[in-house]
Amino acid sequence: MSHLQQSFTVQFVYNVFFTGKLFDSTNPLLADFFTQQASAETRKKLLFVIDSGVVDTHPDLPTSIKTYFAQHADLVDLVPELLIIPGGEVAKNDPDLVEKIVDAVDRNGIDRHSYVAAIGGGSVLDLVGYAAAISHRGIRHIRIPTTVLSQNDSGVGVKNGVNYRSKKNFLGTFVPPVAVFNDNQFLLTLDDRDWRAGISEAIKVALIKDNAFFEWIESHAERLAARDMTAMQYLIHRCAEMHLQHISSGDPFEMGSSRPLDFGHWSAHKLEQLTNFETRHGEAVAIGIALDSLYSQQLGWLTEADTSRILTTLRTLGFTLYQPMLDTDNSAGVLKGLAEFREHLGGQLTIMLLQGIGRGVEVHEIDADHVRQAIATLREQESLNLQPAL
Amino acid sequence: MSHLQQSFTVQFVYNVFFTGKLFDSTNPLLADFFTQQASAETRKKLLFVIDSGVVDTHPDLPTSIKTYFAQHADLVDLVPELLIIPGGEVAKNDPDLVEKIVDAVDRNGIDRHSYVAAIGGGSVLDLVGYAAAISHRGIRHIRIPTTVLSQNDSGVGVKNGVNYRSKKNFLGTFVPPVAVFNDNQFLLTLDDRDWRAGISEAIKVALIKDNAFFEWIESHAERLAARDMTAMQYLIHRCAEMHLQHISSGDPFEMGSSRPLDFGHWSAHKLEQLTNFETRHGEAVAIGIALDSLYSQQLGWLTEADTSRILTTLRTLGFTLYQPMLDTDNSAGVLKGLAEFREHLGGQLTIMLLQGIGRGVEVHEIDADHVRQAIATLREQESLNLQPAL
Ligand SMILES: NC(=O)c1ccc[n+]([C@@H]2O[C@H](COP(=O)([O-])OP(=O)(O)OC[C@H]3O[C@@H](n4cnc5c(N)ncnc54)[C@H](O)[C@@H]3O)[C@@H](O)[C@H]2O)c1
Ligand SMILES: NC(=O)c1ccc[n+]([C@@H]2O[C@H](COP(=O)([O-])OP(=O)(O)OC[C@H]3O[C@@H](n4cnc5c(N)ncnc54)[C@H](O)[C@@H]3O)[C@@H](O)[C@H]2O)c1
Ligand SMILES: [Zn+2]
Ligand SMILES: [Zn+2]
Repeated sequence: MSHLQQSFTVQFVYNVFFTGKLFDSTNPLLADFFTQQASAETRKKLLFVIDSGVVDTHPDLPTSIKTYFAQHADLVDLVPELLIIPGGEVAKNDPDLVEKIVDAVDRNGIDRHSYVAAIGGGSVLDLVGYAAAISHRGIRHIRIPTTVLSQNDSGVGVKNGVNYRSKKNFLGTFVPPVAVFNDNQFLLTLDDRDWRAGISEAIKVALIKDNAFFEWIESHAERLAARDMTAMQYLIHRCAEMHLQHISSGDPFEMGSSRPLDFGHWSAHKLEQLTNFETRHGEAVAIGIALDSLYSQQLGWLTEADTSRILTTLRTLGFTLYQPMLDTDNSAGVLKGLAEFREHLGGQLTIMLLQGIGRGVEVHEIDADHVRQAIATLREQESLNLQPAL
Repeated sequence: MSHLQQSFTVQFVYNVFFTGKLFDSTNPLLADFFTQQASAETRKKLLFVIDSGVVDTHPDLPTSIKTYFAQHADLVDLVPELLIIPGGEVAKNDPDLVEKIVDAVDRNGIDRHSYVAAIGGGSVLDLVGYAAAISHRGIRHIRIPTTVLSQNDSGVGVKNGVNYRSKKNFLGTFVPPVAVFNDNQFLLTLDDRDWRAGISEAIKVALIKDNAFFEWIESHAERLAARDMTAMQYLIHRCAEMHLQHISSGDPFEMGSSRPLDFGHWSAHKLEQLTNFETRHGEAVAIGIALDSLYSQQLGWLTEADTSRILTTLRTLGFTLYQPMLDTDNSAGVLKGLAEFREHLGGQLTIMLLQGIGRGVEVHEIDADHVRQAIATLREQESLNLQPAL
């Protein structure tokens, strides 16, 4: 009996660009990217897949894309057919859409050195990234995120996925994009819910890692709620930066049990499902953060004052911190999310809690009664909140 | 306009073990592996997926597996349901089988730190590896290859995949296994075709990299054809070793255009498809090697004597070096395989040829007339070959 040992490392490099009007003929960013990627030997193709919610609100987008790449026809061959697919979580629940993208890859002869570019919210990006990752064992993938959440969190990371039997991200891979282009102009057309939803991911990362960033969000909460673009751009940039740092300094492909960026997420994923995905991911995360902050307070880890600052900031931003489905207290309820969360991530149950603002700490057990108590607190507070002021 | 740069490396480590009677109660290898992997905090599950061709020829296997893991119940929880799926290339053409494995992962609550173990030929390994790679963004995958080809080549590498619209490996990922167990006892039940088929991958790697290994194969061709187990074990070990070295010293996830280990494969993949997968992968590779050797000779790169040594070695092993489908000289014929090969691998067309035995050299163009000439030579030689000796 003998054995051979195999060991190797693979390096992944990509840039996240911040810009506006990406497809404006005067914006050189995309053209520069393709210039750098060009090789003398082969022509490369570029297939776009676009979120219908983006096309609806930016009806000129397809034309702009065609004009832009007609001007730069020397760099890359735009596939004339722009694939438009439904946006939102429904996209991730529909296996036919994966098939549709794979089919387009096949029909258009997109090879591993060609590109699939996705324009859209986190859902479309997750779906297209997955389809690109499995086609030909991985086609180069460009992400153009169009929501706050996808620009500051999901779009800059290394994960993709779709749902299976409505289990979040049950199918997916770890495959980084080759580039990410954050275009702030897309944010202008977001409805208030989607403008707001992504902010919860910034609060999440601030709470576990960076007190100063939380204080900044706290003091800019009203401006953010009023759709101040300057404030939003800072928030997105800082959140994306922390996200990238976290990935490169840690365990990029999540081989261990620790998963700090999933603070507030164990209940969020379940709540999304329980509400039939009516609750947006970011909205569910806001509730999840509130829940786990209250839980931390019950453990005596977070002061009442700090807990209240967190909940107040979330409310100032416009988040509703209670959802009736939270009270489904049976085997299908939110506590079931704990088991599913562990199962999805693998290994030991590992939940991030707070020992102060900017200071996340992992635990491996969650007490159901404490969770119920936190839910009860949210229920009461929100019912008071909803009373008209005297 | 600003940007953030992301850069990180991920390390992959695994062992390839050589053993016999892996599930014999006295063989500690698997138990030792799980002991090393054990963690105090969590129990891990182990789901087996087995090639029906292996179960048919090793009817005691399911019982041996159950007995083995009953003895080692402290280390890992065997999922009682052993999944048995059809073996051979048909498995990779059937999308329902991917679904069946994903479904078993879901029903049995297999998480990312648990294991999916595949026992079978390269086809079953490719399929199960793919299903494991996409479930929960990657479940730990153990390979137990049972054919010559999978023990010396496909099973020790980092690729998996299934066919799509009968295009080979159109869907797949680069994800290394956590361990490979090569059990020589499985080889005893292979039919002659499968015993032989995998030898072509060893000839391939020898021809492009290692003259001494080719000479060894040449001088042991008769013994190998006569199913000498000692010779076969050496061949598998050396081929696996060269394969592993190639991966770790090069471009493991094949991000560039170079793909030396695909010597002889551009026509092989197409031929498999043209013959409706009646021709085994390894059999097609033998023909592909013959074709590209003759082509190299036509370029004046390989001497007639060396070309003849290669073809003779293949024939001594029992390979048939001509297949009527080679002569399908239209847009669907074997030359179409060149374009599909480039498209699947991406980037510039890059084909390995020989400038001597043990010395592969890449070219970026293939002349159709030279290919036709090489095919004609094979047709003639084989028709002479098939004549009864006077
Ligand atoms: N991969 C990761 O690491 C990761 C991380 C966090 C979240 N996610 C996932 O991201 C998804 C949520 O993404 P999201 O919050 O971006 O929402 P979303 O993608 O579901 O989009 C919400 C809605 O906004 C529309 N839309 C998108 N851009 C628009 C624009 N510029 N103007 C107007 N409408 C627009 C969409 O059509 C959709 O109807 C969830 O599935 C979540 O699980 C993934
Ligand atoms: N992933 C990679 O890097 C890679 C590399 C090379 C080849 N491959 C793929 O591997 C596949 C070919 O694999 P293969 O040559 O092992 O053939 P195979 O897996 O198709 O098996 C051939 C037959 O042998 C049977 N069988 C398997 N083990 C047996 C045993 N011990 N006793 C009796 N019968 C047994 C199977 O049931 C099947 O009927 C092709 O799909 C090829 O593309 C993959
Ligand atoms: Zn999130
Ligand atoms: Zn091969």
